[in-house]
Amino acid sequence: MSDNNATKPGTSVRVEDGYWTPYQRLVRNTVLPYQWEALHDRIAGAEPSRAIANFRIAAGLQEGRFEGFVFQDTDLYKWLEAASYQLGSAFDPELERQVEEAARLIGAAQQADGYLNTYFTVAEPGKRWTNLADCHELYSAGHFIEAAAARYSCTGKTDLLDIAVKLADHIDFEFGPEPGKLRGYDGHQEIELALVRLYEATGERKYLDLAGFFIDERGQKPDFFHLEWEKRGRTSHWHPGVQKTPPSLHYHQAHLPVREQETAVGHAVRAVYMYAAMADLARLRQDEGLLAACRKLWSSIVHKQMYVTGGIGSTPIGEAFTIDYDLPNDTNYSETCASIGLIFFARRMLLLEVSSEYGDIMELALYNTVSSGMSADGKHYFYVNPMEAWPEASRGNPGKHHIKTERQAWYGCACCPPNAARLLSSLGHYIFTSDNENLYVHLYIGSEAEVQLVGGKAAIKLESGIPWKPEASLTITDLPAGNPFSIALRMPAWSSTLRLEINGQEADPDIRSGYAYLYRRWEQGDVIDIGFAMEPRRIYSHPQLRADVGKVALQRGPMIFCLEEADNEAPLAALSLPSVSEITEVPSEWSTGAVLLQARGERLRAPLEEETSLYRHSPPVVESCKLTFVPYALWGNRRSGEMAVWLRESL
Amino acid sequence: MSDNNATKPGTSVRVEDGYWTPYQRLVRNTVLPYQWEALHDRIAGAEPSRAIANFRIAAGLQEGRFEGFVFQDTDLYKWLEAASYQLGSAFDPELERQVEEAARLIGAAQQADGYLNTYFTVAEPGKRWTNLADCHELYSAGHFIEAAAARYSCTGKTDLLDIAVKLADHIDFEFGPEPGKLRGYDGHQEIELALVRLYEATGERKYLDLAGFFIDERGQKPDFFHLEWEKRGRTSHWHPGVQKTPPSLHYHQAHLPVREQETAVGHAVRAVYMYAAMADLARLRQDEGLLAACRKLWSSIVHKQMYVTGGIGSTPIGEAFTIDYDLPNDTNYSETCASIGLIFFARRMLLLEVSSEYGDIMELALYNTVSSGMSADGKHYFYVNPMEAWPEASRGNPGKHHIKTERQAWYGCACCPPNAARLLSSLGHYIFTSDNENLYVHLYIGSEAEVQLVGGKAAIKLESGIPWKPEASLTITDLPAGNPFSIALRMPAWSSTLRLEINGQEADPDIRSGYAYLYRRWEQGDVIDIGFAMEPRRIYSHPQLRADVGKVALQRGPMIFCLEEADNEAPLAALSLPSVSEITEVPSEWSTGAVLLQARGERLRAPLEEETSLYRHSPPVVESCKLTFVPYALWGNRRSGEMAVWLRESL
Repeated sequence: MSDNNATKPGTSVRVEDGYWTPYQRLVRNTVLPYQWEALHDRIAGAEPSRAIANFRIAAGLQEGRFEGFVFQDTDLYKWLEAASYQLGSAFDPELERQVEEAARLIGAAQQADGYLNTYFTVAEPGKRWTNLADCHELYSAGHFIEAAAARYSCTGKTDLLDIAVKLADHIDFEFGPEPGKLRGYDGHQEIELALVRLYEATGERKYLDLAGFFIDERGQKPDFFHLEWEKRGRTSHWHPGVQKTPPSLHYHQAHLPVREQETAVGHAVRAVYMYAAMADLARLRQDEGLLAACRKLWSSIVHKQMYVTGGIGSTPIGEAFTIDYDLPNDTNYSETCASIGLIFFARRMLLLEVSSEYGDIMELALYNTVSSGMSADGKHYFYVNPMEAWPEASRGNPGKHHIKTERQAWYGCACCPPNAARLLSSLGHYIFTSDNENLYVHLYIGSEAEVQLVGGKAAIKLESGIPWKPEASLTITDLPAGNPFSIALRMPAWSSTLRLEINGQEADPDIRSGYAYLYRRWEQGDVIDIGFAMEPRRIYSHPQLRADVGKVALQRGPMIFCLEEADNEAPLAALSLPSVSEITEVPSEWSTGAVLLQARGERLRAPLEEETSLYRHSPPVVESCKLTFVPYALWGNRRSGEMAVWLRESL
Repeated sequence: MSDNNATKPGTSVRVEDGYWTPYQRLVRNTVLPYQWEALHDRIAGAEPSRAIANFRIAAGLQEGRFEGFVFQDTDLYKWLEAASYQLGSAFDPELERQVEEAARLIGAAQQADGYLNTYFTVAEPGKRWTNLADCHELYSAGHFIEAAAARYSCTGKTDLLDIAVKLADHIDFEFGPEPGKLRGYDGHQEIELALVRLYEATGERKYLDLAGFFIDERGQKPDFFHLEWEKRGRTSHWHPGVQKTPPSLHYHQAHLPVREQETAVGHAVRAVYMYAAMADLARLRQDEGLLAACRKLWSSIVHKQMYVTGGIGSTPIGEAFTIDYDLPNDTNYSETCASIGLIFFARRMLLLEVSSEYGDIMELALYNTVSSGMSADGKHYFYVNPMEAWPEASRGNPGKHHIKTERQAWYGCACCPPNAARLLSSLGHYIFTSDNENLYVHLYIGSEAEVQLVGGKAAIKLESGIPWKPEASLTITDLPAGNPFSIALRMPAWSSTLRLEINGQEADPDIRSGYAYLYRRWEQGDVIDIGFAMEPRRIYSHPQLRADVGKVALQRGPMIFCLEEADNEAPLAALSLPSVSEITEVPSEWSTGAVLLQARGERLRAPLEEETSLYRHSPPVVESCKLTFVPYALWGNRRSGEMAVWLRESL
């Protein structure tokens, strides 16, 4: 375990990137203002959020009933977190005014004892902490604490932090192993990683310990969710009446003590949020046991249960993992939030141990599933990221209703849009880490950073053509004379070779765990030029992955590609890619800078004379055709139609 | 429209067939006695049926509460129908005693006004006819009427028929277009075809008219199921509390007047029961409009929505049809009862117009899905007949929980086992029809029959090697001297050629609509020898059938084949059948008489050096292997494991 420390969030990285900056601007100029209006129920035609109204009622500022989901508060908290990152990058008086207004409102809604939750304050005042399995009370608190920690670390402002400390102290008073306290944990993990962030913001060890309590209490006997269920009369928040079965322990990752868990199970978002907190605790408490569990759970996901786009969650039923190698393409869930959580987990694993698989998966999920989640206008979102879509089946087959082929406006349960906003606003935190002797470059996202290293603070500038052009460069823009150190560059799995030059001279890096280490006494003005191999490549799955065996997918750089009906005649399933076809690159005519792929393909057609029969003894006719592949991140931006990531490979 | 009349059920056909007689004996010697015990809750370890107990409570013979499904009565009714067919074939004093005992009990449970339903009599006495959408009152009545008609036509006994007439008269009093009557229809179609049978048994035209009323009322505006739902306060029998949405009209085939329906939609069993009644009415009332609708709905099923095994119902959600060409292999429902209903529909279409597609589909569904539904011991059943099974996914993926890889004992909702029993017991009704000038042979099932033809009653004997041996023969065992007539033999779609000899001389039939007509003055002792082509054949799907494109299935005679893990290494998805592989026949070592198929296949393996990665850039390694295919009807009779009907075809 290394003592690699995170660069402090937001303090030192400014993103200026050809691919991501437009998304960040969308968040700043469109998403956050739009969400602010949505939180205030001022979007005509959209389902009202009710989030602000609930806070006003809880604060006694207006009359009314609580409305919305029991965790509706988090819509505002995630917005606050995203806004805080934006204010950390560049001040904006209007946005700052909105954050301060929200902070005052939340402060007014907080109870005297520190408790904060509008649902229980307004709708069920006597029922605090009686249904943690369903009601997400600690989850909601966690999102507030994350927002407060982000605001403090980005801007130094303490208005939210003061509320968060009061809230966290209240939770610490209620929960813990001591007699009289509740030995419980939340149905939706989030408080754990939030408390770690609060510890990092405040230095208060008790928050780290409380996070550790929640992590280690989960899965202990007797089962808290069963005790709690019995105690409240076997009811569920989500279904009327007395229930026959208690909450599922697997679904809540509470089937075993977390240290004994080896397989990712249950609700995918909750799982990865928990694993992220476990990785934090492993690092901050030098906990080898938790690290070992994290490695196993990581491997369970990425070697057994992850889609080729970095999506996770094979089934919409419970938005959950299923079993190893069960990755159906046409019914998967692969929620945008789950891939965001996987990125959280990956980043924290990189802080524990620098190994390129973490960076590769972080990049894969970011450039594909997260990027696909948001439309080019910033106002439409995919929650579910299918590997295959067929619009008629989405309408006509109830098992596929969750698969949308057009991004949707703000939803009733608005989890993914604000989650994407907070990730995109804090993208700077995912590019670099350092441990004084090494500066690690995990993602090739254009940016400027200041990093504390042996002997002083280095200023660097990363310029990048990723994901479209196979080149990047790192310039040392400022560096006090000092000791030598390494710049360690991730060698992406998608690049078969990596050419490195320092000031025009070929470099000879030391390769360790998929990173190229360049060790020298760096000087101001030094430039590393990085040349990737970015030819289109075919991807094959493990033969145990039944849904994809005999099929092929295409990748170029970090981008996974797919077929869309906008370019290729439906049914896409009738198309195949011959193993000998050359794949060529063409510029997109509808997405600036994007590279599309083309190849000669084959299409199976019914023999004409018996077009109406469903089954026949004569084989279909093979025709030649042209295939056009678009980056998965960009699908669904033209018209609704079929889409497929995997297609058959023919000889 | 021909005036082809049905041979009267059970009067004249005795089955003696190598394949089916063992199943029929199982029904007689095992299934019916077992079900009789189950109906009486006397099977140790099984979930109690409660059917008899409910009748005893309704009859005032014992105290207690109603238990079981709202349509639990039908378990007894289907048993009675099956028992009646068996008693028509051969008398059995113990079985007759049981039927008479049941008849007395049902008579005692019938209300003074003719009403018969133990749920509403015992549990909700004031709520008759208030929830036809959910509560299956007319459906239950229909099954009783079918049993009564079967008993009467097979044995001439009127004990059940008297109750049925009283019940049908009561329904006729309550329902109809006249003022003061209920203009409604049942959520689960069944009463319609039952009333037709009652008409055929009694000659009473009013029952046919009432069936016609139910058929033509469905789908009229205003929507009965919505009116009824509003009237009872928007409740559902199946879910507590007030419901947000009314019953689905599509699910109930009530979205359009039936004559305007062109696409099979909704719950598959209900749909085909309704189409069967429509075909009956089209025939008996010479109704061209209904015939046209029947042809369209038939085509919608068999040309767009049917599995290659004759299974129907693509989704477990609502046990329903979805959309054209949406036939997923690993999540389909294909309930045994739905294929039984498809056989009902096919037989009735044959009575309307003799065309081999009806016979082909009837045979396909019978030899594959229905046959697969029952285990070799007669006590275990598949309700769901998947095209692909993977036991671990059935356990670990909630979207696949309905896919079982081992047949289950008697279920709580025991619809399929007694439905299979009544079909198998009445198999004789599906083999022949006649219209005085033609004797039609639809199925090649060994049997002896007496048929009324021009000039007299002919006795014939059909001997058959189907499904294993490619030969059959038809002997005229008795025939009064008389006029010439045709014997019309179905030319199965699976047989590329058909060789016919009459008394050893090659015959030259007239071919019309897939039947070979042999017209002559037949004499006692004449023998027709029929030689089929039964080589193994590859089946391909229409390319719009996305789940099967690029794949192949195997057929030999009427049997569809599949791969099982008992013979082939999992994952089966990694196997393919080269297009050049020769397919050979081998005798089964575990199922007497059965023919298995073998071929050289290919298996994709992960390159050894990177076994753990889920995705890789190197293509999998191809290995040669031997493939063994077993008849789909016999799958799941050894051990639990993977199964697949379709596999990839490689070059």
